[in-house]
Amino acid sequence: MRRLSFAIATLLAATAMAPLAIAKGPDGPSAPVDKIVDQGTNHSEVMRIAQYLTDVIGARLTNSPPMRQAEDWTQAKFREWGLTNVHKEGFEFGRGWSAKNASVKMISPRPLTLVAAPLAWTPGTNGAITGQVVLAPMADEASLDQYKGKLKGKIVLLTEPTDITDSTDLDFRRWSDADLDRYDNFQLQNGAATANRRPSSQSRLAFAAKRDAFLKAEGAVGYATMSSRNGKLVHGQNSQFQVGATPPLPGFEIAAEDYRRLARLAKMGMAPSLELNSDVSFDDSDTKAYNILADIPGTDAKAGYVMAGAHMDSWAMGDGAADNAAGVSMVMEAARIIKASGIKTKRAIRFALWSGEEQGLLGSMAYVENHVASRPVDPALSGYARYMGWSKGFPIQPGPDHAKLAAYFNLDNGSGKIRGIFTQGNTAVVPIFREWLAPFNSFGATKVATARTGSTDHVFFDAVGIPAFQFIQDPLDYGSNVHHTDVDTFDHLKADDMRQGAIILAAFLINAANAPEPLPRLPLATEPNASEGFYAAPGAH
Amino acid sequence: MRRLSFAIATLLAATAMAPLAIAKGPDGPSAPVDKIVDQGTNHSEVMRIAQYLTDVIGARLTNSPPMRQAEDWTQAKFREWGLTNVHKEGFEFGRGWSAKNASVKMISPRPLTLVAAPLAWTPGTNGAITGQVVLAPMADEASLDQYKGKLKGKIVLLTEPTDITDSTDLDFRRWSDADLDRYDNFQLQNGAATANRRPSSQSRLAFAAKRDAFLKAEGAVGYATMSSRNGKLVHGQNSQFQVGATPPLPGFEIAAEDYRRLARLAKMGMAPSLELNSDVSFDDSDTKAYNILADIPGTDAKAGYVMAGAHMDSWAMGDGAADNAAGVSMVMEAARIIKASGIKTKRAIRFALWSGEEQGLLGSMAYVENHVASRPVDPALSGYARYMGWSKGFPIQPGPDHAKLAAYFNLDNGSGKIRGIFTQGNTAVVPIFREWLAPFNSFGATKVATARTGSTDHVFFDAVGIPAFQFIQDPLDYGSNVHHTDVDTFDHLKADDMRQGAIILAAFLINAANAPEPLPRLPLATEPNASEGFYAAPGAH
Repeated sequence: MRRLSFAIATLLAATAMAPLAIAKGPDGPSAPVDKIVDQGTNHSEVMRIAQYLTDVIGARLTNSPPMRQAEDWTQAKFREWGLTNVHKEGFEFGRGWSAKNASVKMISPRPLTLVAAPLAWTPGTNGAITGQVVLAPMADEASLDQYKGKLKGKIVLLTEPTDITDSTDLDFRRWSDADLDRYDNFQLQNGAATANRRPSSQSRLAFAAKRDAFLKAEGAVGYATMSSRNGKLVHGQNSQFQVGATPPLPGFEIAAEDYRRLARLAKMGMAPSLELNSDVSFDDSDTKAYNILADIPGTDAKAGYVMAGAHMDSWAMGDGAADNAAGVSMVMEAARIIKASGIKTKRAIRFALWSGEEQGLLGSMAYVENHVASRPVDPALSGYARYMGWSKGFPIQPGPDHAKLAAYFNLDNGSGKIRGIFTQGNTAVVPIFREWLAPFNSFGATKVATARTGSTDHVFFDAVGIPAFQFIQDPLDYGSNVHHTDVDTFDHLKADDMRQGAIILAAFLINAANAPEPLPRLPLATEPNASEGFYAAPGAH
Repeated sequence: MRRLSFAIATLLAATAMAPLAIAKGPDGPSAPVDKIVDQGTNHSEVMRIAQYLTDVIGARLTNSPPMRQAEDWTQAKFREWGLTNVHKEGFEFGRGWSAKNASVKMISPRPLTLVAAPLAWTPGTNGAITGQVVLAPMADEASLDQYKGKLKGKIVLLTEPTDITDSTDLDFRRWSDADLDRYDNFQLQNGAATANRRPSSQSRLAFAAKRDAFLKAEGAVGYATMSSRNGKLVHGQNSQFQVGATPPLPGFEIAAEDYRRLARLAKMGMAPSLELNSDVSFDDSDTKAYNILADIPGTDAKAGYVMAGAHMDSWAMGDGAADNAAGVSMVMEAARIIKASGIKTKRAIRFALWSGEEQGLLGSMAYVENHVASRPVDPALSGYARYMGWSKGFPIQPGPDHAKLAAYFNLDNGSGKIRGIFTQGNTAVVPIFREWLAPFNSFGATKVATARTGSTDHVFFDAVGIPAFQFIQDPLDYGSNVHHTDVDTFDHLKADDMRQGAIILAAFLINAANAPEPLPRLPLATEPNASEGFYAAPGAH
């Protein structure tokens, strides 16, 4: 029994792959979709790729030594599989940073080992530093003054602790049909209402620099923030990564339960003393970050290309597994599947592993600017600030690849299986994607949703008029526990889900690369409009 | 408006407190129940007690220095409130142990700070110990042989790692009415079917001693187990606490995500090297553990007494907050409420803070044996083994307090509000407890459930025929994350719930102490029967 016979017919119809519509049967050559499924199941490499990136290499903070190792390893893999034009493309980023060890111990009023993470790009302690904590929540510049003269020799607790909010959601979830339906909801006004809900990253970073200088001038010896999650999970996120702009004092994120205890004891008049220890290294030998690119050429050199991408950088805690070794592994596995299946496509297929995503989607922005289109931005802005300003620049100036790049597909929502795809407000692609998903309906992938989703590397392609899409994935435990924390580890990845994701991505790439016409494009924006609000806060994925 | 008028009438009717049924009104003296509620709400001390036990004193492993501190502090509190006969009663236990610091770092194939807990009563490392891990799951004596000659200089991973099971329950829960109804389910055959589901603690401890000797003889330098919970939570539980029987090698529990990574790397042929560090102290100067006892005398010295208890000892990670500073604080607060409200009772009321509960309900067993009743037990047995053998000894020999002790009430299910009470198969108390709960139905306490519950300090009272009860409490996050872990901290306690619990406990004690007749007793068991299976695995509460 050929349980995919309907699926095959649909895939062939949608992609008009006439040369591949060869006779097939139990003993003959298989249909393209069955070759893909066979490669992606019986010969799957996706979990081996993920395991190497996570267990062996580990967390891949942009420009850190493990990220450099991953840049080399992934290029070697692409070459091993026979992809062409495998190379890295650099863009100016900032400092390399890595922590060999870090610990925070309470030494009075009683000894206790705390759970903590060094904040990325903060300096090491150069041996143990001890000091008494002082609770000094600093939310803005005006709040600094009240602590003048009170911080000398202290370890400053910067967060005002909040109480535990009782969780009301399941830790582990898969989308119901009703959940998926919620995404199929065209927004006539792009999400302007959600813009500027919190201080911009730009002003937050500017304040952080002033606060850091204040702490240093006041003679504080270190500082700590409270983890935003309960349950002893830590993140260590901090985005002051540029040369000349990294913090002057060692900073730590302390687990919520441990931080609240410190704050309570301080409020009881028993301010604890801590011993801070972190052994970190900076590397400014190459301040460029690198995207990894690799191609499978098409049969028609003038037909342009389609593209799949996922960011390879991560935050420094955990092993960057769901975010986003999962996406990288599925993108790489799709490349391997297509190459190994021997399926030819009219357009070329390019695979991109982005860097600097966690600091503001910087790698994909660099690619778009260098190849696809640019927008005028204040040249004084960089990093997060530039990211925030980018979508306000007009006119959009198409670059050399603007007409050539027929579609971009992104994966960055953890290891959950693909349940559908967001069309980013593009209504013309709905019937096309429904056909492309048909072979995989029984794999759980059913929904073509017109909603826009943001916060990851498709947004700059989308913002310059390229048909650029992110898949809908089952959330699993990504949002509850795993996202950016020290439990973003291989054991939280779902192997069957990732096999499914790689197969569907491979099929979409083949379909997009073989479609008679490129995917329909939305009209190019020519002036600022409500879509400004669309770019969700960076770092959310 | 007097919203408790029905409640008052009920409480008075049930307890026949004629001397207290004085005129009451907006300006006059209040009814007993309103005095209790006023003390337990407007003058509540329950969270201050809990905060001192958790934030200031911290984890209270039996016989550890913080447990000694808690023994002193709670006696002083009872005296400060005017309780009488405040004293401690010792029973033979074992070694004092405490850990000042502990860390586990991966030093190859890449540096990484792991989350780990030193296993209780294991020796310190005396500086850093380094060694390569070897995955050597040892489940029984037969499994030791295969590792002969393979452990020299190694750090032995003793647990075969299991995959993550996707959670399907909410982390935070309150009981629905349907949940409560499930408890109201009389078991004609006491839970014999659940007995002996896993190797008895006795045989597990005997195997642990053999395994330890094997590891030592083979030249291993340390060992590690995997946390039974995901999400980087650790427990550090180990029950080899007796003089001459503590483990010879340093042992650590490693967070599940970190442990699985070690095991995977070992299976990939890249066995990591670890650096173990623990600074622990043993204290054999006093091998007795101590229960704390305090009384409020009754008006009739011949009327006997009623009792409330909660264990004060905890495991060594976290601060022993939900397990069981919560119960201790509610028991102490009930004592303070009764004393401060000036309500007199016919019978005396005794308050007990147990020790050694986590090692087998040893403190309450000692009290029962010394005061209430004894059972013949093999004198060679001690600790867990004695606990397991105790319920098989016949005849039950009533002691001096057997007739005097009219009721025992226990609290040991976290900080969740009281939703009802288990009658332990006693059907005659059902209508009585319904009346006693009536004033508190609107507080969420409604269910009188005939089911038996075990695993905490009421069971030995129950086993010798004393009416002994545990309250039903909302589970909150006790079972999901908090129980015995390093997030058993003050911030996970619910203040309003604990105020409610202390108030209801105080009311039950007054009712039981003033009831015209002692509570009805079940017939005394005279031979081994199905109830043997009732004693659930020790350490579950």
